[in-house]
Amino acid sequence: MMRKSFFLVLMVLSLIVRGEDGSRLWLRYDPLSAEKAAEVDQNILHIHADMTKPSLAAGVEELQKAISGFTGRVVPHSTRLQHRSVVMVVGGSRLAGRLGLNAELQAMHRDGFIIRPMVRNRQSYLVIASPTQVGVLYGVFHLIRSIKIDEFSSELTVKSEPKFDVRILNHWDNLNGTVERGYAGRSIWLWNELPGILSPRYKKYARANASVGINAMTPNNVNADPLILSREYLYKVQALANVFRPYGVRMYLSINFASPMVLGGLPTADPLAPAVRQWWIDKVNEIYQMIPDFGGFLVKANSEGQPGPLDFGRTHVDGANMIAEALKPHGGIVMWRAFVYEPDGIDRAKEAYLEFVPYDGQYHPNVTIQAKSGPVDFQPREPFSPIFNGLRKTGVTVEVQITQEYTGWSDHLVYLGLQNAEMLKSETYAFGPGSTVARMTDGSLIPGRVSAFAGVANIGQDANWTGHHFGQANWYAFGRQGWDHTLCPEKIADEWIRQTFTSDPAFREPVREMMMSSLETVIDYMMPLGLHHIFAWDHHYGPEPWCYVPGARPDWLPRYYHQATKEGIGFNRTRTGSGAVDQYEQPLADKFNNLETTPEIFLLWFHHVPWDHKMNSGKTLWDEMAHIYQRGVDSVRSFQKTWDRMEPFVDAERFRHVQSRLRTQIRSAVWWRDAVMLYFQTYSRMPIPLHLERPINDLEYYKQIKLPYLHHN
Amino acid sequence: MMRKSFFLVLMVLSLIVRGEDGSRLWLRYDPLSAEKAAEVDQNILHIHADMTKPSLAAGVEELQKAISGFTGRVVPHSTRLQHRSVVMVVGGSRLAGRLGLNAELQAMHRDGFIIRPMVRNRQSYLVIASPTQVGVLYGVFHLIRSIKIDEFSSELTVKSEPKFDVRILNHWDNLNGTVERGYAGRSIWLWNELPGILSPRYKKYARANASVGINAMTPNNVNADPLILSREYLYKVQALANVFRPYGVRMYLSINFASPMVLGGLPTADPLAPAVRQWWIDKVNEIYQMIPDFGGFLVKANSEGQPGPLDFGRTHVDGANMIAEALKPHGGIVMWRAFVYEPDGIDRAKEAYLEFVPYDGQYHPNVTIQAKSGPVDFQPREPFSPIFNGLRKTGVTVEVQITQEYTGWSDHLVYLGLQNAEMLKSETYAFGPGSTVARMTDGSLIPGRVSAFAGVANIGQDANWTGHHFGQANWYAFGRQGWDHTLCPEKIADEWIRQTFTSDPAFREPVREMMMSSLETVIDYMMPLGLHHIFAWDHHYGPEPWCYVPGARPDWLPRYYHQATKEGIGFNRTRTGSGAVDQYEQPLADKFNNLETTPEIFLLWFHHVPWDHKMNSGKTLWDEMAHIYQRGVDSVRSFQKTWDRMEPFVDAERFRHVQSRLRTQIRSAVWWRDAVMLYFQTYSRMPIPLHLERPINDLEYYKQIKLPYLHHN
Repeated sequence: MMRKSFFLVLMVLSLIVRGEDGSRLWLRYDPLSAEKAAEVDQNILHIHADMTKPSLAAGVEELQKAISGFTGRVVPHSTRLQHRSVVMVVGGSRLAGRLGLNAELQAMHRDGFIIRPMVRNRQSYLVIASPTQVGVLYGVFHLIRSIKIDEFSSELTVKSEPKFDVRILNHWDNLNGTVERGYAGRSIWLWNELPGILSPRYKKYARANASVGINAMTPNNVNADPLILSREYLYKVQALANVFRPYGVRMYLSINFASPMVLGGLPTADPLAPAVRQWWIDKVNEIYQMIPDFGGFLVKANSEGQPGPLDFGRTHVDGANMIAEALKPHGGIVMWRAFVYEPDGIDRAKEAYLEFVPYDGQYHPNVTIQAKSGPVDFQPREPFSPIFNGLRKTGVTVEVQITQEYTGWSDHLVYLGLQNAEMLKSETYAFGPGSTVARMTDGSLIPGRVSAFAGVANIGQDANWTGHHFGQANWYAFGRQGWDHTLCPEKIADEWIRQTFTSDPAFREPVREMMMSSLETVIDYMMPLGLHHIFAWDHHYGPEPWCYVPGARPDWLPRYYHQATKEGIGFNRTRTGSGAVDQYEQPLADKFNNLETTPEIFLLWFHHVPWDHKMNSGKTLWDEMAHIYQRGVDSVRSFQKTWDRMEPFVDAERFRHVQSRLRTQIRSAVWWRDAVMLYFQTYSRMPIPLHLERPINDLEYYKQIKLPYLHHN
Repeated sequence: MMRKSFFLVLMVLSLIVRGEDGSRLWLRYDPLSAEKAAEVDQNILHIHADMTKPSLAAGVEELQKAISGFTGRVVPHSTRLQHRSVVMVVGGSRLAGRLGLNAELQAMHRDGFIIRPMVRNRQSYLVIASPTQVGVLYGVFHLIRSIKIDEFSSELTVKSEPKFDVRILNHWDNLNGTVERGYAGRSIWLWNELPGILSPRYKKYARANASVGINAMTPNNVNADPLILSREYLYKVQALANVFRPYGVRMYLSINFASPMVLGGLPTADPLAPAVRQWWIDKVNEIYQMIPDFGGFLVKANSEGQPGPLDFGRTHVDGANMIAEALKPHGGIVMWRAFVYEPDGIDRAKEAYLEFVPYDGQYHPNVTIQAKSGPVDFQPREPFSPIFNGLRKTGVTVEVQITQEYTGWSDHLVYLGLQNAEMLKSETYAFGPGSTVARMTDGSLIPGRVSAFAGVANIGQDANWTGHHFGQANWYAFGRQGWDHTLCPEKIADEWIRQTFTSDPAFREPVREMMMSSLETVIDYMMPLGLHHIFAWDHHYGPEPWCYVPGARPDWLPRYYHQATKEGIGFNRTRTGSGAVDQYEQPLADKFNNLETTPEIFLLWFHHVPWDHKMNSGKTLWDEMAHIYQRGVDSVRSFQKTWDRMEPFVDAERFRHVQSRLRTQIRSAVWWRDAVMLYFQTYSRMPIPLHLERPINDLEYYKQIKLPYLHHN
């Protein structure tokens, strides 16, 4: 006991003394506790792996680092299995046959893995097997996680397969190094240095993704520079792909639909023009020669000023299928974004559905329609986009935002695993009960199509990758949920905390609780009760419900969304309004159409509601709003208290960093509360309930805040 | 009843509809309620006054305005007294004789007055009598106040005399129109226009002063421009004096000791040099020719760079007496400021005492030593200055600050009537128990000397005169306390609220309660437990306990005062430290010398105390500090709630103005709490108790705040 506590003290001391910048993410690989080390030693003395296979070599390297103090040998694959070994087995290999695993592996998803203790000739092994070498690597990361989060035992038995085939990060990084909606510094892709210089970060990035099952990425912004398809840039892309390959991270590219004109010098990009079609076939062939496992293209077409097939009198089907045909021979896919809306539409929330659902069944099988999770734009809370119940013969991909464009940038602690889960679990009723968004998109209900889950990355050059240390949890959760959307967000948070900070329950439990209430908190202080898009012009950080920019598209102005009048507030999307409710399947359509049956969290999304409407709490709508905004503020204050209590358990560097961000968050929460309530008060003309905390600035002050959109990028 | 409530509704409506800028101060003179009007009508139908006497004419004008709807006649003094008349009687007049009042009046203070109902020949009068016409005016203002605050009845009987002879406002206004430590706009003295143009504000100013008994003023800064004594400026001063005269407000001037050199061209200002002495005699004669009731001079000599007798190898006695001699033939006085401290002193709090007490008894009777109330400088809380027990044969004047240099400018709601009362009631024990500061300075214990009470004005060109509407209460209270220092501050606040806002108890009581806790509140969030002068460099608004200005005088830096170390905090003024405790009389000296018997409100003023010292509450000093700062913040939040509840009772203009200032105050309180606690935490290394609200900014942020010292002046 003495020795053990001494060891623990040493560990804690080393954590305190060493600077911690968060760069190691959840792959910290600190020395194991004596207890854990003993348990691991019981089972793992050697590693058997075919080191000629890059993913297995990567797995060995990872395991050696993770079990620091690992003293065993790496045993060549061909030799006799040693007692107390980890044995890495790829399907179809002789070893797989010897162990009798081939049939089982053949039936599995190519990324799936088995972890299984086996005993042969009185020798015990821990087998990690998969149909593919990357699958084995996923198994290795699972084993490491099990050890780190105290789930390892000699009986560890796992069989795991991913729910989505493509688990893809979309970086919105521009080729000039800026990141659209990036809040963690500039782009990690140093295009000027590529392909000659390979930043060590590229490999770390790939490792981190593999550790949570992310197997795809687009390095460039969906508002794509055509240059990315130039030969010069393809060499750079190739160099990255080579680094990522052992970790199973496949390269995709965001493309500009007008590339044949800009890059190829053609007079048109009409998808039915033979020269255009040929240009794409040639370009795709060129890419696959350089990157044989290239994944495909992500396309933002006819959206917010981007070119697309509609510019040439064609349809989204024409455009998507043309590119799909070029990719098909190589097994590539098209991820065609559904984020379209026209300035003249009566309800932006309806437009993606109207644009894409009529063509359901006409898209090629290797096309997926990638739709933002909600019908508007990554708001703190939206109902799911009805496109997920509208498209029933087409592959559909949910696009979520990992970067916090609308949830306080990297200044606010918000755990988005909760937002993803809320969306994925939403019941669409498209094929009756059980037709959740997850099952509508993961291939369960619409088989034979692309199955994918996409997230807009929150990664930048900041030492801690994501700006806020807790932003790492959103990257982590995205990967874990892409692998298994049935995982409980609380379990994912717990895993992340244990690996990123400590397993001490005195830290883990309150911090997990804080993360678990963080989404509701940001909704409370920003946009509760179905309010949406009352953000400030362009920067989307602070409130600006009064925003008016002369000449601006009406659907880029908050008034379009909140519709506040002296009588009430909210967007009437019922049958007496925009009728958006009828894009939902029954019984949802009727439920949302009726003020009484609409869940209050979506009240002002679907209804224009009188200020004195009686809420479930018995309060008027106005009073309820006031209470909820205050609840949000109170909750951030409680986060501050929670975190300050955590000081003994965290290194000083990360402690201070998070503490400082929470201070920013409380200021921001108060700003939101005051600005929104004072502004809407000019309509409601009702007092903020007099027992509630009062505003700390006048409305005029808040109206004058013009945030310089500079400090994160 | 119907009619009455209709009348009330009209009144309230008129208040709501009409803009209210606060310019009428407490002399609002709105229509009386029907009930009040009836009661007044019962008693006052006519006014008898000798209209050739300017102060009586002023009184008549005031009374007519105050009793709006007054329909009676002003009856010439010489005619027969009418039934139901107010009769204004000046001592020594025939009327006074007829009414048998002369003997009584002769025994009274010249500013005193009698209000007395009299019945002669079945006719009833309300007599207002005084030895002087100004005294009658004071009586008129008393009568008006009685009506306005519902203390009027047919039996109203008052005999009132002021405690201090000189009740003087010191304006720190510069001749260029700026105001040192002014937070209500630029100077109300428009020197460029004078003497030709007389702003209507001058008379309003004089009326307001007379209404609370203020009978003297210096229009110019104690850091005096010699120009004020030039012939050109004396004409301007004379013009002001003429406006003030009917209201009994006598003109004094702040003078520059080097005036004989700067203005007179003499080679020296040595007070013993005959030419210098003659220069002052000539100048004083010149002034009295222009302003026969001129009051005297206020002198800041050898203080903060101002010239003085010490520059010529003389003493303060030499300087003060020389000027006193010039003034004596005219009945003028010298108010010689004791605000002196040298950069090399070991304890600034000791210096005034050391400089002035040794000369006790040597000052001429028409000299008063004007000392700031505390030994340092108008801090939110100080113990009284020991000079008040040190000087026992000399006239001493307490100088208080009405302007809020150290209590949040005109941004913070702080009722300084409390601070004045705390000072004036302080027990010095100079002549045994009962030797309060008030009685040491009002002539009770040191008779035959000047008896005066001085306040640094908070008046500027702002429409509401004082920046903050509640700043008016501090002007009001100063006057009332100068008249009668035994008045309870709560009573004064109540009077002011009733006259300035409304008598409705639903408003009056919570607002009075807010005012009554406002001083303790500002002390809590700025400098509790005897902390002092940890203000920011120069502006004295925000906190800057870390302030370091290279080359600055040490006693201009907060470190000099807080003395924080890893061990503890506070200025050791005990016998093991600077020994300042021994400037106090027993039993105070021993009491302050002992950590255990020092009142906790002065703890860190007198002692350097370990961070873990156990306080009366049982908490450590550090925890106690944290709790008190939070208490201050909570209290301001409660002020906001109180005020927001008052909206139905106040016109919109003043409501919003005060509401907005309270929002500034809460931001400031949080700034103070965070900045001070985070800074001292770098010494204490103890956590802010974890259940308390957390800081909202990092210390580094607060350290970077550099307030531009512009927006009030």
